[in-house]
Amino acid sequence: MAIVVIRQDDKIDDWKEALQLYAPQIAVYDYREEHPREAVKMAVVWKHPPGSLQGYPNLECISSSGAGVDFLFEDDRLPKHLPITRVVDEYLSKDMSEHVIALIFSLLKNLYHYKVDQFNKIWKPVGYKRISDLTIGIMGLGALGSVLAKDLVRFGFKVRGWSSSEKNIQGVETFTGPAGRTAFLEATQILVCLLPLTDDTKGILNAGLFRQLPKGAYLINVARGGHLVDGDLLEMLDNGHLSGAALDVYHQEPLSLEHPFWEHPKVHMTPHYASVSETISVVPQIVENYRRLASGEELLNLVSEDKKY
Amino acid sequence: MAIVVIRQDDKIDDWKEALQLYAPQIAVYDYREEHPREAVKMAVVWKHPPGSLQGYPNLECISSSGAGVDFLFEDDRLPKHLPITRVVDEYLSKDMSEHVIALIFSLLKNLYHYKVDQFNKIWKPVGYKRISDLTIGIMGLGALGSVLAKDLVRFGFKVRGWSSSEKNIQGVETFTGPAGRTAFLEATQILVCLLPLTDDTKGILNAGLFRQLPKGAYLINVARGGHLVDGDLLEMLDNGHLSGAALDVYHQEPLSLEHPFWEHPKVHMTPHYASVSETISVVPQIVENYRRLASGEELLNLVSEDKKY
Repeated sequence: MAIVVIRQDDKIDDWKEALQLYAPQIAVYDYREEHPREAVKMAVVWKHPPGSLQGYPNLECISSSGAGVDFLFEDDRLPKHLPITRVVDEYLSKDMSEHVIALIFSLLKNLYHYKVDQFNKIWKPVGYKRISDLTIGIMGLGALGSVLAKDLVRFGFKVRGWSSSEKNIQGVETFTGPAGRTAFLEATQILVCLLPLTDDTKGILNAGLFRQLPKGAYLINVARGGHLVDGDLLEMLDNGHLSGAALDVYHQEPLSLEHPFWEHPKVHMTPHYASVSETISVVPQIVENYRRLASGEELLNLVSEDKKY
Repeated sequence: MAIVVIRQDDKIDDWKEALQLYAPQIAVYDYREEHPREAVKMAVVWKHPPGSLQGYPNLECISSSGAGVDFLFEDDRLPKHLPITRVVDEYLSKDMSEHVIALIFSLLKNLYHYKVDQFNKIWKPVGYKRISDLTIGIMGLGALGSVLAKDLVRFGFKVRGWSSSEKNIQGVETFTGPAGRTAFLEATQILVCLLPLTDDTKGILNAGLFRQLPKGAYLINVARGGHLVDGDLLEMLDNGHLSGAALDVYHQEPLSLEHPFWEHPKVHMTPHYASVSETISVVPQIVENYRRLASGEELLNLVSEDKKY
């Protein structure tokens, strides 16, 4: 009975340590070390090397250690028909919400603009916007999007939301499905993408969608790089239809230094940091699922193999 | 019966137009044009040339067209014993509050840091802070400070406030007078200055005060440049006691291009824009005071000649 941790960043030791601290009774292995593969019942993974989940004959559950699971479905050697769980973390939702709110305030008050002016020693007050001037549209009203929507309502923003299934959030004007999308977009001044990445949503942020936004709209993509058609965004920024974009996620991470986003004056980049799952807040739910696995109870935060989120 | 508009920026025409639109029955003059000086009962002023308020034999009221009045008391040829009014504007308070909130969120999430990294094509996620991690201390709980305090409480920040007279704001831990100042400062992580500029508060942001803040504290000065001892701030940033500062106001505006603030990596500048009084929202209360002047009623938003705010 053991857990294997599989990921390609430098955080394997952090995860091993956090799991062992919280649940000393469970054996935890680094996938790169010699370990008894038949003992492993659960794999705790994040952007694992494709194929690395093979060769565990008694694997019963794959546990993503973040909110996203899209990387799992990109592995065509993923063991079939195993339950997949993801992390639903209050901190994760709050952190994401605070990141998006920071970006929105920064935009209202032109803080990026002034930082560049300071760099160039330019003193030039420009106009600003108020909370009451803006309508924020959120695509995706799941665990992350719904927390953001509620926070923005509390702060006094006008908020609308779009999701594949019908949602009801107090103070939020909600829209559903393809039919509701046009109406959702036409009054959205700041579009926030918090959708899961699936076959249906890949490339959803494209020229056709951007054209449905009012002129001067602003894009915030904090979901996945795969949602965005990069060339369409650049085109819409350069022809003035969109006024700017704040991006935290990219097709390739770290983003190639040759990519035009780096130097584009209307693109504000952060290096995929908006809500990093932290071991300390996430480990308890992973260990709880390990316990449920052993006792045959239903797992928390199961991912639907059909919907892929 | 007339109003004269006296200011040195390029907004005299805006103010004349706004006043005449709102109150066509009142004659409004630009102080630079030929005008019947004995007809003038009210001067609507902002940073007027010193001495320019002399020579109005029937002047009954000096109306600052902003929240500040310190510039009036710097004019030693100011006509004595005339009532002085200032602007108390809901927009002004909200705009200031939104500016400070934008700065705080930007700091939480290192947005300025990432903007500089983008400029240098550096991909390097760094840690971030949460709303729940921070205690904000506001110096000055008047019209501006109290709105900010309430907004920050609503957003979930821990908030403390310091003012010369005792204040009571729900959810805010308040401190009063010199005796309360040490206790106020010692747990303040982000210090926001929203004090009026008076003889008592000139230079209040100095090394002695900074030393009472915990190591790593951050300064936001959005009140007046005169509150800050520039050299003391630079010393405390350079010796690492303070982690940074966001400044909107300066001793000299625009700030001289030779000033070290421009190039200091821990100083984030905005060009005194945080809450620009806008004619449209301010004119009604000025015209109301003009009417009260004529009918002998008590004026709104009178400035105390003793307290100078």
